[in-house]
Amino acid sequence: MIETPSLVDQHCHGVLRTELGLGTFEAHLGRGEGPPAPGTTFFDTQTGFAVRRWCPPLLGLEPHCPPARYLARRRELGVLEAGRRLLRGSGITTYLVDTGLPGDLTRPGELATTGAAQAHEIVRLELLAEQVADTSGTVDSFLANLAESVHGAAAGAVAFTSVAGLREDRPLPPEPPGPGEVRGAAGRWLAGRQVGGELADPVLLRHLLWIAVASGLPLQLHTGAADPQRSFGAFARATAGLGTDLVLLHGYPHHRAAAHLAGVFPHVYADLGPALVRTGARAAAVLAEILELAPFGKLLFSSGAHGLPELHVVGATLFREALGRVLGTWVAEGAWSLADAQRVAAMIAADNARRVYGLTDE
Amino acid sequence: MIETPSLVDQHCHGVLRTELGLGTFEAHLGRGEGPPAPGTTFFDTQTGFAVRRWCPPLLGLEPHCPPARYLARRRELGVLEAGRRLLRGSGITTYLVDTGLPGDLTRPGELATTGAAQAHEIVRLELLAEQVADTSGTVDSFLANLAESVHGAAAGAVAFTSVAGLREDRPLPPEPPGPGEVRGAAGRWLAGRQVGGELADPVLLRHLLWIAVASGLPLQLHTGAADPQRSFGAFARATAGLGTDLVLLHGYPHHRAAAHLAGVFPHVYADLGPALVRTGARAAAVLAEILELAPFGKLLFSSGAHGLPELHVVGATLFREALGRVLGTWVAEGAWSLADAQRVAAMIAADNARRVYGLTDE
Amino acid sequence: MIETPSLVDQHCHGVLRTELGLGTFEAHLGRGEGPPAPGTTFFDTQTGFAVRRWCPPLLGLEPHCPPARYLARRRELGVLEAGRRLLRGSGITTYLVDTGLPGDLTRPGELATTGAAQAHEIVRLELLAEQVADTSGTVDSFLANLAESVHGAAAGAVAFTSVAGLREDRPLPPEPPGPGEVRGAAGRWLAGRQVGGELADPVLLRHLLWIAVASGLPLQLHTGAADPQRSFGAFARATAGLGTDLVLLHGYPHHRAAAHLAGVFPHVYADLGPALVRTGARAAAVLAEILELAPFGKLLFSSGAHGLPELHVVGATLFREALGRVLGTWVAEGAWSLADAQRVAAMIAADNARRVYGLTDE
Repeated sequence: MIETPSLVDQHCHGVLRTELGLGTFEAHLGRGEGPPAPGTTFFDTQTGFAVRRWCPPLLGLEPHCPPARYLARRRELGVLEAGRRLLRGSGITTYLVDTGLPGDLTRPGELATTGAAQAHEIVRLELLAEQVADTSGTVDSFLANLAESVHGAAAGAVAFTSVAGLREDRPLPPEPPGPGEVRGAAGRWLAGRQVGGELADPVLLRHLLWIAVASGLPLQLHTGAADPQRSFGAFARATAGLGTDLVLLHGYPHHRAAAHLAGVFPHVYADLGPALVRTGARAAAVLAEILELAPFGKLLFSSGAHGLPELHVVGATLFREALGRVLGTWVAEGAWSLADAQRVAAMIAADNARRVYGLTDE
Repeated sequence: MIETPSLVDQHCHGVLRTELGLGTFEAHLGRGEGPPAPGTTFFDTQTGFAVRRWCPPLLGLEPHCPPARYLARRRELGVLEAGRRLLRGSGITTYLVDTGLPGDLTRPGELATTGAAQAHEIVRLELLAEQVADTSGTVDSFLANLAESVHGAAAGAVAFTSVAGLREDRPLPPEPPGPGEVRGAAGRWLAGRQVGGELADPVLLRHLLWIAVASGLPLQLHTGAADPQRSFGAFARATAGLGTDLVLLHGYPHHRAAAHLAGVFPHVYADLGPALVRTGARAAAVLAEILELAPFGKLLFSSGAHGLPELHVVGATLFREALGRVLGTWVAEGAWSLADAQRVAAMIAADNARRVYGLTDE
Repeated sequence: MIETPSLVDQHCHGVLRTELGLGTFEAHLGRGEGPPAPGTTFFDTQTGFAVRRWCPPLLGLEPHCPPARYLARRRELGVLEAGRRLLRGSGITTYLVDTGLPGDLTRPGELATTGAAQAHEIVRLELLAEQVADTSGTVDSFLANLAESVHGAAAGAVAFTSVAGLREDRPLPPEPPGPGEVRGAAGRWLAGRQVGGELADPVLLRHLLWIAVASGLPLQLHTGAADPQRSFGAFARATAGLGTDLVLLHGYPHHRAAAHLAGVFPHVYADLGPALVRTGARAAAVLAEILELAPFGKLLFSSGAHGLPELHVVGATLFREALGRVLGTWVAEGAWSLADAQRVAAMIAADNARRVYGLTDE
């Protein structure tokens, strides 16, 4: 048996504080840019089926019960008690929480209390920059406050995260933008911006990345659905040896290319959670692919969960099940020794994350 | 047991009306830009092995019999009787037939009669434009007739299809070409064209796509071997919400990226047939990958068969076998309920296609 | 049982002649641009685990013994005797040896003697050009000597190899560079060059490729981690029908796209060794993917081994194991006949390579 007694979820979000109807719940199962197509439902996805497989028993229902019955039971318990049962049933012992998404979501401390676990904050660079812009009067003060704010945030957080590489049509350029370029972009953005306005300017996004790289804190990069070899290869080469680790998030369906980069560059790590949450019954097959090319010390479990504690449960349960099945098969075939398999399981479940993020609290 | 009592082949072509020798038959097993390499044969492919596995029994021979013996038996029965036995043995109940390929191929009505099934036409936009060009004297009349012709064809067909996105070196631009650009391209094409000349001008191909999008009929897009996320991502975003569905054909080996797009955009669907025909003994593994990310209401069975009724047989048989094996395994593991598995099987085999193409004939 | 009595390793390198410590040995297990990350080791990879699974028994130790014990036993035997036991235990009967890497590596004849096998040379075009540059005084003499040298090398080698397509950011252009362009590039390179200086100029690299294409000898192309459909698609189309075969090396994680190209173009072949060495316990799964799309006459075994005879062992053993398991399963399922499976196994293990490289020595 391959055991993972502790589990560090290295990238997730808080859960919604409000009671959820069927439609709102369903919307959090989709990954799309719109509602489900006419005649279809996001419950008919691997994620939907995995939620129906693993969550009803934690609330006292049969696996695979209909969504409406599950939601009724959830409301009967109340959002707080349902969340408590779900998060405590997930087996996650430490949450690293990206606090950069909007919505009425629990903060890290609240997630820790509800889940009887530890929690630490991951700071989203874009949100930080928007907050700095809200309180800076001039381009000069904005740029000065920005650098100060990133370095200040580094003291209280375990990592930064950014979506700067998400533009799927082109690779992230390897070099930092020049000072004049940054000033120009900041001037244009601030001039056209209202309080709360989003940061999407590519020059400022890259500038932020490089400030974060200078902070030394691990930097989590959302990779979207693009091939990270193409999107991040040049940036990874440019940041090699600077002392800051890069963690590639959400590699699927290019998870093999993400694992490849983690093998090539000492400072690049690959995340594997959401690939499992989204592929459900296929989680073991996808995990096995990620384990092909990445050195085992470079892989990090996460759930990527957002909004629904059901997604933390599914992420953690699919991971433990898949890991046990994949490594157990290799041991049974004689390809791996049992001792190696147990050691690698502990590394991916928690030990790698503890080392990369400097966690000492357990 | 996972059953699929009816099967809508959402993209195929007619079968050849003439008796076939070994060489002509073999040529239809290849996917290439030339003959087999010296010392090799297209029978030594997954498709060749699958044909030898599934078709000989339908003609009274042993599975895996040598190609020459199979061809001899086929000629003994005659092309009509062999076609009857094969198509009726495929289990396909409705054929959606792309009539845009050259050659002495059966038309939809003939395929329906031979196969004791229903059939409907898919109109290839390029062929339509070439026919309009053959009978239009001026650029003005060509452009007017083109729009009229597409809208006229929409009345009698269940879908349009196009190869406009097949240029693997660059993404399909998201916006329609401007009127002046279209007029210029039409003028150059018509001036240089002889009757029957092929349409390959990228501006006119895009113009055609947008006329088709305006028709509201589902639009099947050949994706070739390029990553559809790269080729079609921007076009999918540009056509979201317009009320016309896009069906991505032939995603393999980028079928996971096609499934991803089907998950992101409500109006995008993914085809899965040819990926199975080409991968033979691996069909269950490939199907399982397609089932990772696509919502189950967004997947459509097809054979992609062209020329040989053997390919309709192999497409349908591999699909049923693979679907039964993959979903059956998930039920056995407890990951899916049996009721869900049966419902999803019926959706992919026929129900999704009936809804998307508005089929009411069964 | 699927047997592969002889095994042609169609792309490997020599082995190090010196005794190795733990660090040097470990460095040869990585694929990276640097040392292992702090807190990690290249022994904790699929390659590391596969070496520990398959090599200790050849030196009289238990599978999975600790690296330090294995290295101690290796030094106890001495590098010559350890190399003899390992290479002779690999089952490889013919080595095609790329002699273009630096380091104190055994030459083909020495590898043959140590391994009790045949060996032939593969000439690396870049190294040849650098040697010509070392002895040519002018651009004119360099260009004349270059052509002569490539054609001379063709007489004594079984293939050429090149890394000209490795620049991941852009496809290899389809056309040869013009004479003026080549002269200009040669002039600049020679003027700035010291004896022994590396050739990295893209124009000269392409010029070299086209001289090699004209020689008629098979040309092995390193594909790196880029999608070979994108990198080499246009070059493959441009060289179709010229009579020279292209062999795509190292396709993983884009091995399916490499297999696709091998299916489309009669003169394109796909290599499969390193994908297995790097993926270890997953070798059967990766091999099965390569067998999806490539015609079985277009696949070539290799180990890709460099420096450590352990990598020749692992390459050959994983290949034989994976092939037996994958084809054996298909026979057991009835998808393939046993006779076909045995024939395909012999083709991929040795017969395809014998035909492509004109090997007659066994």
